[in-house]
Amino acid sequence: MSSTLLSRRDLAFLLHDWLDVTRLTERPRYAEHSRETFDDVLDLAARVAAEHFAPHNRAADSAEPTFDGRRVHTIPQVKAALDVFAQTGLLAASLDESIGGMQLPHVVSAACFAWFQAANVGTAAYPFLTLGNANLLLNHGSAEQIDTWVRPMVEGRFFGTMCLSEPQAGSSLADIATRAEPQDDGTYRLAGTKMWISGGDHELAENIVHLVLARIPGGPPGVKGISLFIVPKVLLDADGALGPRNDVVLVGLNHKMGYRGTTNTLLNFGEGVHRPYGRAGAVGYLVGQPHQGLAQMFHMMNEARIGVGAGATALGYTGYLKAVGYARQRPQGRPVADKDPTTPQVPIVAHPDVRRMLLAQKSYVEGALALILYCGRLLDEEKTAPAEADRARAHLLLDMLTPIAKSWPSQWCLAANDLAIQVHGGYGYTRDYDVEQHWRDNRLNPIHEGTHGIQALDLLGRKATMQGGAGLALLLETIGATVGRAWKAEGEAAELAAQLGAAVDRIGVVTRRLWATGDPELALANASVYLEAVGHVVIAWMWLEQLLVVEAAGAPDGPDVDFLAGKRQAARYFFRHELPRTGPQFDLLESLDRTTLDTRETWF
Amino acid sequence: MSSTLLSRRDLAFLLHDWLDVTRLTERPRYAEHSRETFDDVLDLAARVAAEHFAPHNRAADSAEPTFDGRRVHTIPQVKAALDVFAQTGLLAASLDESIGGMQLPHVVSAACFAWFQAANVGTAAYPFLTLGNANLLLNHGSAEQIDTWVRPMVEGRFFGTMCLSEPQAGSSLADIATRAEPQDDGTYRLAGTKMWISGGDHELAENIVHLVLARIPGGPPGVKGISLFIVPKVLLDADGALGPRNDVVLVGLNHKMGYRGTTNTLLNFGEGVHRPYGRAGAVGYLVGQPHQGLAQMFHMMNEARIGVGAGATALGYTGYLKAVGYARQRPQGRPVADKDPTTPQVPIVAHPDVRRMLLAQKSYVEGALALILYCGRLLDEEKTAPAEADRARAHLLLDMLTPIAKSWPSQWCLAANDLAIQVHGGYGYTRDYDVEQHWRDNRLNPIHEGTHGIQALDLLGRKATMQGGAGLALLLETIGATVGRAWKAEGEAAELAAQLGAAVDRIGVVTRRLWATGDPELALANASVYLEAVGHVVIAWMWLEQLLVVEAAGAPDGPDVDFLAGKRQAARYFFRHELPRTGPQFDLLESLDRTTLDTRETWF
Repeated sequence: MSSTLLSRRDLAFLLHDWLDVTRLTERPRYAEHSRETFDDVLDLAARVAAEHFAPHNRAADSAEPTFDGRRVHTIPQVKAALDVFAQTGLLAASLDESIGGMQLPHVVSAACFAWFQAANVGTAAYPFLTLGNANLLLNHGSAEQIDTWVRPMVEGRFFGTMCLSEPQAGSSLADIATRAEPQDDGTYRLAGTKMWISGGDHELAENIVHLVLARIPGGPPGVKGISLFIVPKVLLDADGALGPRNDVVLVGLNHKMGYRGTTNTLLNFGEGVHRPYGRAGAVGYLVGQPHQGLAQMFHMMNEARIGVGAGATALGYTGYLKAVGYARQRPQGRPVADKDPTTPQVPIVAHPDVRRMLLAQKSYVEGALALILYCGRLLDEEKTAPAEADRARAHLLLDMLTPIAKSWPSQWCLAANDLAIQVHGGYGYTRDYDVEQHWRDNRLNPIHEGTHGIQALDLLGRKATMQGGAGLALLLETIGATVGRAWKAEGEAAELAAQLGAAVDRIGVVTRRLWATGDPELALANASVYLEAVGHVVIAWMWLEQLLVVEAAGAPDGPDVDFLAGKRQAARYFFRHELPRTGPQFDLLESLDRTTLDTRETWF
Repeated sequence: MSSTLLSRRDLAFLLHDWLDVTRLTERPRYAEHSRETFDDVLDLAARVAAEHFAPHNRAADSAEPTFDGRRVHTIPQVKAALDVFAQTGLLAASLDESIGGMQLPHVVSAACFAWFQAANVGTAAYPFLTLGNANLLLNHGSAEQIDTWVRPMVEGRFFGTMCLSEPQAGSSLADIATRAEPQDDGTYRLAGTKMWISGGDHELAENIVHLVLARIPGGPPGVKGISLFIVPKVLLDADGALGPRNDVVLVGLNHKMGYRGTTNTLLNFGEGVHRPYGRAGAVGYLVGQPHQGLAQMFHMMNEARIGVGAGATALGYTGYLKAVGYARQRPQGRPVADKDPTTPQVPIVAHPDVRRMLLAQKSYVEGALALILYCGRLLDEEKTAPAEADRARAHLLLDMLTPIAKSWPSQWCLAANDLAIQVHGGYGYTRDYDVEQHWRDNRLNPIHEGTHGIQALDLLGRKATMQGGAGLALLLETIGATVGRAWKAEGEAAELAAQLGAAVDRIGVVTRRLWATGDPELALANASVYLEAVGHVVIAWMWLEQLLVVEAAGAPDGPDVDFLAGKRQAARYFFRHELPRTGPQFDLLESLDRTTLDTRETWF
């Protein structure tokens, strides 16, 4: 039976036929691997996700975690699933063997993790956050910190969080107020309140390793005075055994519309409820140097942002597959041409409007998955390309694509979930079907890890201008290379290449025009429109890439005929129905529209 | 304090400054009324909605109705609110005085009811359905049926439902299978199963009057063999007192994502659980003639469709007002130009991207409200215009606009709710704020009373071609008249008129081109795109109409300066950011795109 989580065939197409991930095994880091080990680990992920994560997805939504004032209670299936996950070793799929990892390429690891996000994004959030935390410490922590905190995370005994937001500082990290007072023994004592902390408290692991942004008194104001600290829920004895409770207190759980399986918490640090070693204050350990917290956290945040895009994609993908399944089996109505009410009803997939909704979903979720895996491949390139210049290029391109990889799937795979509900009709609006939960869960993604608006400012305000515009130039040149190859290919690809080439040109023109104003406020006034337009061009590029693979495959036999025809049709759909949306967006940007800028708040 | 449900000022603008509803009092039907009585009843609606409906909106969502196998349990606030509502007499606001109504214009009545939909769409659904039911019986029932069933509904003692869908026949009414066997006494006995029946069972009223579509054996197949029946939950004695239970059984409640305050039921008719007068079978009374059920029901359905659009608008509107309130009081970040982290944070309404999200919402919800009230005004025109030709024109135009009035607000006021969540950030994703519920509630509207796809087929397949295209010609001519007036006006209106005129021309060209194919399947393949494009043009028209009122107002003083500037800015926003979306849609339609049509189901 084919899965309703992700498509194994599509993953094979993207990973092997397109991204040729097996060639990575030519590099020393991945030399122990082969196509077989890649496929085995994908099979493992698919099986564990289906058997241990998917079955309690609805239950975790219906019975969200509760807090009795002392402990957080979670339905038992969550811990059971996470224990199995830990046994698979998949948390450390991409990590070094030296720390107990599998040393798989990031692109393969991302594909593995997408199965868990599709199956149960709420339960999958715990390892997601833990891996982000571990990665940050692996990059910025001391050897001792890695040994003390990362190893137990890799083993599944400790979980991790990232504690950035405060009630008065969500999008504005410059306003973080949590204080970290240095102590004589080199540790710090933290005091402050952190908001929206996912996985901030629970009984699912022996310990929780919080990574906390805070200010060391006397440092500069704003983001330049933020430092990063390890603040465990439970302190460790000298021999690494669990010791006294740290002064970190759960104030309450947030009650969300979706993503309800993941605890989301308000935490107080240093309130004095626990008094480790006889004194109030949450014991923290500085990571790296003082005042480097934002840069360090951004390292994790960039991966987290792509991970958010991956989660959005996975939710869109499973919704799409369920909509296809429903449309094939639900009889309703007759073709337009059939006026005879006594003929049997047809499955709704026979209706063009239903096929439109399915094709739209397909073009969104497969386009988004291609982008997510492409970013994973870039990460591998950044880490392991033999030539330094290639590593630098991959880094720059990934930096450029990150706000898009975060925001495009968050917007359009949410739209896919909306269409999945619509295909299900009234049934899709009930809690007897999965799609309404996917839609609710997915609605978080345009908000957390930097809102849509923040991603837009990042893309146009920072990424498009960094290094004198080198990142943007590289993106346009890379898309241009695909356009060039498509030009040379015979058939439909050349047609679509012309359309994509024109869109790429518009990005260049519009970006120059916006910044030529010399007025950042005006340039950035419609940053969200810019983000959406560029995002659509990038996904069109992903589809042209896929079409080139299809055309190179020639005329295959068997089930591949349908698979490849579907890819071709989705590419067509995206170029005919979606890419043209960018025309008016570029027009608006080119007009230097001041509508939002000129609106006074008293006019609402 | 200004309301967070709807804007009294906007209603005054639309009803008085634009639609000039007081002129209706020149007609005999409304002669007893005046601007004062209109305003009084609007104030009454606003107050009762705020005091009795809004306070339990969240509670009714959290504690949805339950069924213990015998009775349905609902939180007590629902019945309390509905009892107050009944006392106001607002259910019968637009009905004849002879039946106990207020004989108010429909446009005023629609504005009144929107307050309740904004406050609590779940509780408001009970009178909404009851009024639709009463209206249908007033039009098609016998004098005795009106006396027996409508009077108690007007008094608030009986509630009504409409029972169309069956498990195997949702969008496809041709496949209705419920049977109605004629009896010797002129009554019928019904047997069958009805699905998705809102308000299908509860203890909120003394009785429930179901209007049921069923087949009399021997009639023609398909929609031509459907008849309409009154099937009460409780039968009445000869003197009108409650008698034995009819054979209508609640099988179960549907558990929805939103709209949770309204029971939504699966009902069995004629199962034999109750045996009225000693025999199984649900007693039903034929309304009008046999086999006329679909036409009769469509009468109610058309009003219900506009009512769905009104509900979607009301939900979008209240979400918008709450987003404005939040954006004004929530401090976060600083203007782009301010790099000093020690200056105080600004309210988020100061950020252009937040203003963009508020302006977008404003343009959607105020544009939708204008359309809903315009349709209400057309209904008054259809019913009371002195000249028969004007009545016919109003009827035709309303027919044309109905699928748009249903679907546009369902799509775009849902989008407004999405933006309201986004403005609230993480808080908007929690159940501590209203906006997430509005979004969930609003998601039903593109599904019930005919899905988006059904409305699209109705608009392009039926309405655009009816009477040889006379409906479409009238719509385009009516919009053209506004364009003509705007041409003559000085200032910005003339500019926007050119843009709207061009869009109107494209509707004409595209419609002709689609039907010139002679291939209904091809013509209708992209009916949803057509619906969305025409919908945007219609809302642009609504904004140009409003702009003309603003320009006619000249340069006012006081608070009206801001109000009118806001209207102007929202009109601008719609013409600059929204109307241009239709360009690629018309291009696609003109290309006679076959993408969805040519997609095989094996390609998904």
